[in-house]
Amino acid sequence: MIPISDLIEQLRSRGARRVALQFPAGLAREAPGTSAALRDAGFEVIVSGDACYGGCDLALDALAYADVLVHFGHAPVEERPDVVYEPVRIDFDLSVLESVVPLLKARRIGLVTTIQHVHLLDGVAAFLREHGVEAVVAAGDGRTPVPGQVLGCNFAAARATGADEILFVGTGVFHPIGIRLSTRARVVALDPFTGQAGVVDADRLVRRRAALMEKARDAANYGIILSSRSGQRRLDLARRLVGLSEKAFLVVMREVSPDALLDLGFEAYVNTACPRLAYDDQVRFPVPVLAPPEFEILCGARSLDDYTIDEYLAP
Amino acid sequence: MIPISDLIEQLRSRGARRVALQFPAGLAREAPGTSAALRDAGFEVIVSGDACYGGCDLALDALAYADVLVHFGHAPVEERPDVVYEPVRIDFDLSVLESVVPLLKARRIGLVTTIQHVHLLDGVAAFLREHGVEAVVAAGDGRTPVPGQVLGCNFAAARATGADEILFVGTGVFHPIGIRLSTRARVVALDPFTGQAGVVDADRLVRRRAALMEKARDAANYGIILSSRSGQRRLDLARRLVGLSEKAFLVVMREVSPDALLDLGFEAYVNTACPRLAYDDQVRFPVPVLAPPEFEILCGARSLDDYTIDEYLAP
Repeated sequence: MIPISDLIEQLRSRGARRVALQFPAGLAREAPGTSAALRDAGFEVIVSGDACYGGCDLALDALAYADVLVHFGHAPVEERPDVVYEPVRIDFDLSVLESVVPLLKARRIGLVTTIQHVHLLDGVAAFLREHGVEAVVAAGDGRTPVPGQVLGCNFAAARATGADEILFVGTGVFHPIGIRLSTRARVVALDPFTGQAGVVDADRLVRRRAALMEKARDAANYGIILSSRSGQRRLDLARRLVGLSEKAFLVVMREVSPDALLDLGFEAYVNTACPRLAYDDQVRFPVPVLAPPEFEILCGARSLDDYTIDEYLAP
Repeated sequence: MIPISDLIEQLRSRGARRVALQFPAGLAREAPGTSAALRDAGFEVIVSGDACYGGCDLALDALAYADVLVHFGHAPVEERPDVVYEPVRIDFDLSVLESVVPLLKARRIGLVTTIQHVHLLDGVAAFLREHGVEAVVAAGDGRTPVPGQVLGCNFAAARATGADEILFVGTGVFHPIGIRLSTRARVVALDPFTGQAGVVDADRLVRRRAALMEKARDAANYGIILSSRSGQRRLDLARRLVGLSEKAFLVVMREVSPDALLDLGFEAYVNTACPRLAYDDQVRFPVPVLAPPEFEILCGARSLDDYTIDEYLAP
């Protein structure tokens, strides 16, 4: 059960009467209980039932029927007066850091993590200090408001450390590979739940993407995907990419699904929605889905040596 | 290739410069070619890439970037000054009607079909007249603007014939079952492509739905689904249903998918989005998804003898 007593106070102090609730998939099962508790507290409640992929994906549909939207599980990627963000903290045991200390080469490193663990960064830095390593935690940009926080589409807090070596604490391989490509620093990743730690290698991803670019080179046409989700609308970028090729057409989509891409019949796509889609979901897609820098390379607007990961930075 | 010379004239006469295109799944592969042809004619083009389920599902997201939305494949369910509807006609051979004549009992019947075949209704009526059967084609309501046209959610044109026997020409079992439940008339259905014809039996569906209502009776909570699609927003109905039970909560969704329903964790749902979802997709859903009249029966607000199909009629 998500604790909501603070939330109720906050909603009352705003004078909110009608409240919309949005949960990411991992928390969605809290919807019935949270709805009942808020209704018992006197609010009119509407739940957003669509899949939610991040703080970049606000349920503005539901907000049409409410005074305020409560978005659980993520920090803001954009501040809006009618949205309350309720990030959820997930703890881990700091002793897990012991496995990563021997892997660090520098005495001064950058330190980053994802939103659910940022409250532990002070503790992580103290632990490392005791082991002779100075950890720099830096502010990112407007889409990552908490110092040391990275998103799968934004590694500004890693770059801002200026360090040649960066420790990422969190799960999955996507964030550390992105940090590696974005900063060119040596990156060490630690899964705080399994204790598994390792030096990140981005070369395999780059080789895989180079092969995909070759496959997309002779496509008869390209669909340039523009997202209709609240915090994923990179219209200027999408328009610029359309301008790079006469074979490129703008396609606006909410759900970038394999079925939709196949139905539409473009021979390749370029993704300006959530950057992770192009990298993580290519295995599910029936045709090549390039990242914007990859399409720039294909069109001769960027050199291959300048290969980089797609980031969505604050304007 | 969809013929677009008339469309180009129409767009020019409107003074449109930026055009959004929306295709149902069966026509979506025309997107690249149609986009290229319209761009060659001087228009700025944006394609809506999301799945489209009917004329009730306008790509207003794409319209944000265009002067006009061209919606292919469906007749209007709502007229809007910034939407051009381009229904697609599908012909069949009138001789296919021979198989249905022996099944008709009345000498005066109601005649209905779906939008892609309405242009053939005069021919169908003439054929039947030659075989001694008078076919009545009647106007429906504002959501079915073409006489004789039915939707999966609207059988007004069938009821308006006043006939005790109705012939439905089209594919699938859903429309004829809906006509049967909505009109209580004898219904004969003819598939114009296979020539298969038969008298429609709705009893099996009603028995299946009665069992589902029993299964939903003891649910700890109900999610009342409100669609965010343009022509599926039955807010008044959804609010009224929420008022029928303290266990009912409003849930706004775009895509009513099995995953979303399971994630959200309500023990049963009531569907006020596309009516067909509750009937056609129950086999895919992890929990009961009731139609509004079924929830009314469960809450004692309607008698079981008054069981009817969910229809979305014009306001």
